Amino acid sequence: MTKALRIGIAGLGTVGAGVIQILRQNGELLSARAGKEVVITAVSARDRNRDRGVSLDDLRWYDDPTALVADPDVDAVVELIGGSDGIALELTRAALVAGKPVITANKALLAHHGAELARLAEANGVTIGYEAAVAGGIPIVKALREGLAGNRIISVYGILNGTCNYILTTMRETGRDFQDVLAEAQELGYAEADPTFDIDGIDSAHKLALLAALAFGCPPDFDAVNIEGIRHVSALDIAFATEMGLRIKLLGVARKTEFGLEQWVQPAMVKIGTPISQIEGVFNAVVADGDQVDTTLHSGRGAGAGPTASAVAADIADLAREALPPVFTLPVDQLTRIPPAHMGRHQGAYYIRLMVVDRPGVLADVSALMRDHNVSIESLIQRARNPGEAVPIVLTTHETTEADMIDVLARIRALDSVLEPPRMIRIGTL
Amino acid sequence: MTKALRIGIAGLGTVGAGVIQILRQNGELLSARAGKEVVITAVSARDRNRDRGVSLDDLRWYDDPTALVADPDVDAVVELIGGSDGIALELTRAALVAGKPVITANKALLAHHGAELARLAEANGVTIGYEAAVAGGIPIVKALREGLAGNRIISVYGILNGTCNYILTTMRETGRDFQDVLAEAQELGYAEADPTFDIDGIDSAHKLALLAALAFGCPPDFDAVNIEGIRHVSALDIAFATEMGLRIKLLGVARKTEFGLEQWVQPAMVKIGTPISQIEGVFNAVVADGDQVDTTLHSGRGAGAGPTASAVAADIADLAREALPPVFTLPVDQLTRIPPAHMGRHQGAYYIRLMVVDRPGVLADVSALMRDHNVSIESLIQRARNPGEAVPIVLTTHETTEADMIDVLARIRALDSVLEPPRMIRIGTL
Repeated sequence: MTKALRIGIAGLGTVGAGVIQILRQNGELLSARAGKEVVITAVSARDRNRDRGVSLDDLRWYDDPTALVADPDVDAVVELIGGSDGIALELTRAALVAGKPVITANKALLAHHGAELARLAEANGVTIGYEAAVAGGIPIVKALREGLAGNRIISVYGILNGTCNYILTTMRETGRDFQDVLAEAQELGYAEADPTFDIDGIDSAHKLALLAALAFGCPPDFDAVNIEGIRHVSALDIAFATEMGLRIKLLGVARKTEFGLEQWVQPAMVKIGTPISQIEGVFNAVVADGDQVDTTLHSGRGAGAGPTASAVAADIADLAREALPPVFTLPVDQLTRIPPAHMGRHQGAYYIRLMVVDRPGVLADVSALMRDHNVSIESLIQRARNPGEAVPIVLTTHETTEADMIDVLARIRALDSVLEPPRMIRIGTL
Repeated sequence: MTKALRIGIAGLGTVGAGVIQILRQNGELLSARAGKEVVITAVSARDRNRDRGVSLDDLRWYDDPTALVADPDVDAVVELIGGSDGIALELTRAALVAGKPVITANKALLAHHGAELARLAEANGVTIGYEAAVAGGIPIVKALREGLAGNRIISVYGILNGTCNYILTTMRETGRDFQDVLAEAQELGYAEADPTFDIDGIDSAHKLALLAALAFGCPPDFDAVNIEGIRHVSALDIAFATEMGLRIKLLGVARKTEFGLEQWVQPAMVKIGTPISQIEGVFNAVVADGDQVDTTLHSGRGAGAGPTASAVAADIADLAREALPPVFTLPVDQLTRIPPAHMGRHQGAYYIRLMVVDRPGVLADVSALMRDHNVSIESLIQRARNPGEAVPIVLTTHETTEADMIDVLARIRALDSVLEPPRMIRIGTL
């Protein structure tokens, strides 16, 4: 064995403690697999005295994470502070400038500053590992970057947020409403006190931007992701979906089309029985479609100390082997920006729910408008329950463009008998 | 870019042609990702004039694959001849001795000679890539070797043969018998003219031995794999399984137990709804359970030109980046042989089907024997249809040891009313 790889960890929350734990428990094995001893030499966090379930006795302590970076006994920095800017960004820049590679679980940081940081890393002859930033313990960064290196990726999509998937799964299983299930998820620790980043799709979008960069050789473009969270997913739509053989999932989808790069994080319906539809509860999954390999699916736990630390450990091993490639696989100068594809250009099938007055002729009006816009109906559920009162009409369409769909829904909304803005949800993963 | 990596390909069947194809189609992208130009310089096969759908015009031709190895313009050899011995073994040895790394799709070769070849590689400062040898396009070798490097693997299992999975899926969907579906699979090209290696579980066992070596840091031990193929899976058992919420899959399972390393390739029943149960048709899947990451599942196409060539290309890229680790991750001297665990020690649930004479008291006799052997029945189906004639009794047990199960089945077999040897199939993946 050659000289050890000495790690400094900045940020000692659940994941930071998990990384210390994994190196204590499996450090010898990890070192053997990496062909080089791996040791933690220094740590930094806000509160030295907090009980983290791991002893920090033999580790050098820094109150200031940038001082940790400067420690000559730190060869590489593990950044687990979080946040797209502030101290995490400062620290990462400082480490790279000092010629020290960075391993991070920080998807926000890389989604927003990925290209800049990749350039900085390259200029200083180091790189950034972020397996832990996307889909927790699933080695999907490695799969896209290396395992599928021979493929032109056609699309990459997945269930990228365990909190949302847990909420949607529980809503379906219990028939309860979003707010109710969210409150329970918060009590159980599956959702944060401030759940915005998760349930509004931001966290998934951060991850999607990174997956897209890896898959398509472009700089991450977070601002180009169309984002909608799960706040407006109703128990009613979940029940109708089940009836139609569909499941609602919060999907992140990136796809290269003739119109550019399509990126969206939105609730979508997938057919029951497809592998992605079976990913339930806190589990994540990523599907990569390559021109040679066809469809591959990778699933596992997307969060938690163990899975996330497992991903950090994989990057550490690669770093020790000097096998960690450039941040987005290609050198920064070879990354090509792909213009975003407008979602109006999207082609696919749709689920539509209308709340209408239960009286004769409504369906005829809706069908006529659909026909006039070349939107073809695939299936329809209409339940008369309260003559003269609000009832749902639910339908699915054959493939159409989203622009046409939005257009026809505006016309439908204008009908007297239609009481609420129509609900539109994409069907499928394209 | 530095000096190109020059590849020689020995064996130009479907996969060999696929590798040429992938380098023609995506070679520039692969080279960019690998940070080094990758070119094919020479090829070798039996028949120069066969139409392979790819031009060989600009490639040096060798009738003798060992001459290809000696070509000074060949830096690395891709072995796609196949077979555990003979020319493939000879060629691989020659390449390693010449200090040239080998990339292979040959699971039989490595399952039988893995330790010897790994040692030879190490002695000559090179390595062997075999992503294509296990589960086709799924980057599972990389996932186990690198992506989960921080984990102590608890078990690794999967559906490792697409031919068998296709046959079992079709048997279930159509209710037809094994022989009938096999014949059709042969016509469709999903099964070989001589299907022995596939349907008798040998091919799966080769792959399992490699997965176990990677997961547990031991030399591959093919002879320790308990193997049973799918010839004796009956339409009747498939139908009963479905009725009980189970699916029959040919599983390969490797697990470290207190009694040693348990390795088996056998038809087993998995609960409908579990991710592994959803892997249908020619698809493969591997589940790795790690002490940190928990359960990860990796699925995709297990065979075919594109998927297999995709895996070969990934190894080529790693080789170009000088990032391909030792053959079984650890240096050969650090591999530790793990004694095989006797299957009698296996603990699990079982499916049992008895063919009995339809008369009163049979079930009482069977239940009494089970009770006396501490085997507890979980569920039971008994259908009286032809009084005095043969009818099935199907039952599932709670967890018990396999030794007890075999013991009690021998007693049951000895009952006058039991007409055939009982059919026993494991339930679950442990």
